[in-house]
Amino acid sequence: MAFNYPNGMPFPNNEGNSIKKQEKNQKKSPQFANRGMNFEEEINQSNLYYLNRNLAVIHKKPTPLKIVKVDYPRRSAAVITEAYFNQASTTDYNGVYDGYYLDFEAKETKNKTSFPLKNFHEHQINHMKQCIQQKGVCFVLVWFSTLNKCFLLGANHVITSWENQKMNQRKSISFQTFETTGYEIKLAIAPRIPYLKAVDDYISKEIQYG
Amino acid sequence: MAFNYPNGMPFPNNEGNSIKKQEKNQKKSPQFANRGMNFEEEINQSNLYYLNRNLAVIHKKPTPLKIVKVDYPRRSAAVITEAYFNQASTTDYNGVYDGYYLDFEAKETKNKTSFPLKNFHEHQINHMKQCIQQKGVCFVLVWFSTLNKCFLLGANHVITSWENQKMNQRKSISFQTFETTGYEIKLAIAPRIPYLKAVDDYISKEIQYG
Repeated sequence: MAFNYPNGMPFPNNEGNSIKKQEKNQKKSPQFANRGMNFEEEINQSNLYYLNRNLAVIHKKPTPLKIVKVDYPRRSAAVITEAYFNQASTTDYNGVYDGYYLDFEAKETKNKTSFPLKNFHEHQINHMKQCIQQKGVCFVLVWFSTLNKCFLLGANHVITSWENQKMNQRKSISFQTFETTGYEIKLAIAPRIPYLKAVDDYISKEIQYG
Repeated sequence: MAFNYPNGMPFPNNEGNSIKKQEKNQKKSPQFANRGMNFEEEINQSNLYYLNRNLAVIHKKPTPLKIVKVDYPRRSAAVITEAYFNQASTTDYNGVYDGYYLDFEAKETKNKTSFPLKNFHEHQINHMKQCIQQKGVCFVLVWFSTLNKCFLLGANHVITSWENQKMNQRKSISFQTFETTGYEIKLAIAPRIPYLKAVDDYISKEIQYG
């Protein structure tokens, strides 16, 4: 039985795996093709790279939890002994890049031909709409793990697909849409996911705030 | 014995108070003069007001926790049974307002003549520096609970005081500095803390990006 974070990402200690077992698995696959956590970690590493070089300040938001019970065995270490995962009301990442407010969600799929919209929640779509209205730069980073390809796609396109879905149109965004409307991000060494280049392209082509 | 969040805010279930007892206390004091949580809640309410009227998208970041153990009694409700408070690496609030990246910390003091710098952590100061470098609009909101006065102060002034403190200068920001260099926020009904007005003033007087 698999449990996910409210944002759909698999919980690290999933499927009864011990943490040790997981680490072993991760070592076996240097590519981050198998698990959502790994794409996320690559993004986090890239954010750290950008932060350390004063290129952007982007952080992943902590997982929202509802804390019910806390024990205080020692002053230095309060232990939370009962808490629950809360539904996040925003996207996972935000921050500032050269005066621009960046806001995005990082998602992964094994699909080869499309990205299923069920990967999003209504509140994430609403948050994207709100950010666009305030002239934020809003997008998704999608990793097609089987194809080994990564794209930035503007949030406006995600929102359009989401609205169309409600009118009984397709329940996914075609891979072709990513190829024609998105911005491909070629994986590199440092940072692993150089998404700011794609952000530059996206801003210069699609963002007309000013 | 009192326990605080890593950001210095008192934990709601502090000092052995039951949650019920706390609620009772809160009802007794309609002003948010006594506890840090209340100023924070007023900010959260003001953010909600701004969000609902499409004026700004500002959220408080969830408290960062290190999750160690999760039980799965039912599929619908994973229970975290062991977790610890992590040190936050950023400020508490950020978001987007009319194309501007806003980033701030909300603090409260009972002091009448100054705001003690021990309310900040080194990592928060560093985060403010990083955000300013990326042309973010960065500040603190400080509530002088005894004086019943609220101010916005630009992060640059906080950083200067912090650096001076290291050179054996004063370990606080004088109330006078808030009066002369800050922007007073008069409490209101809706929103309770209309800080966007002060942000407008701050941007027009001190922010020269663009």
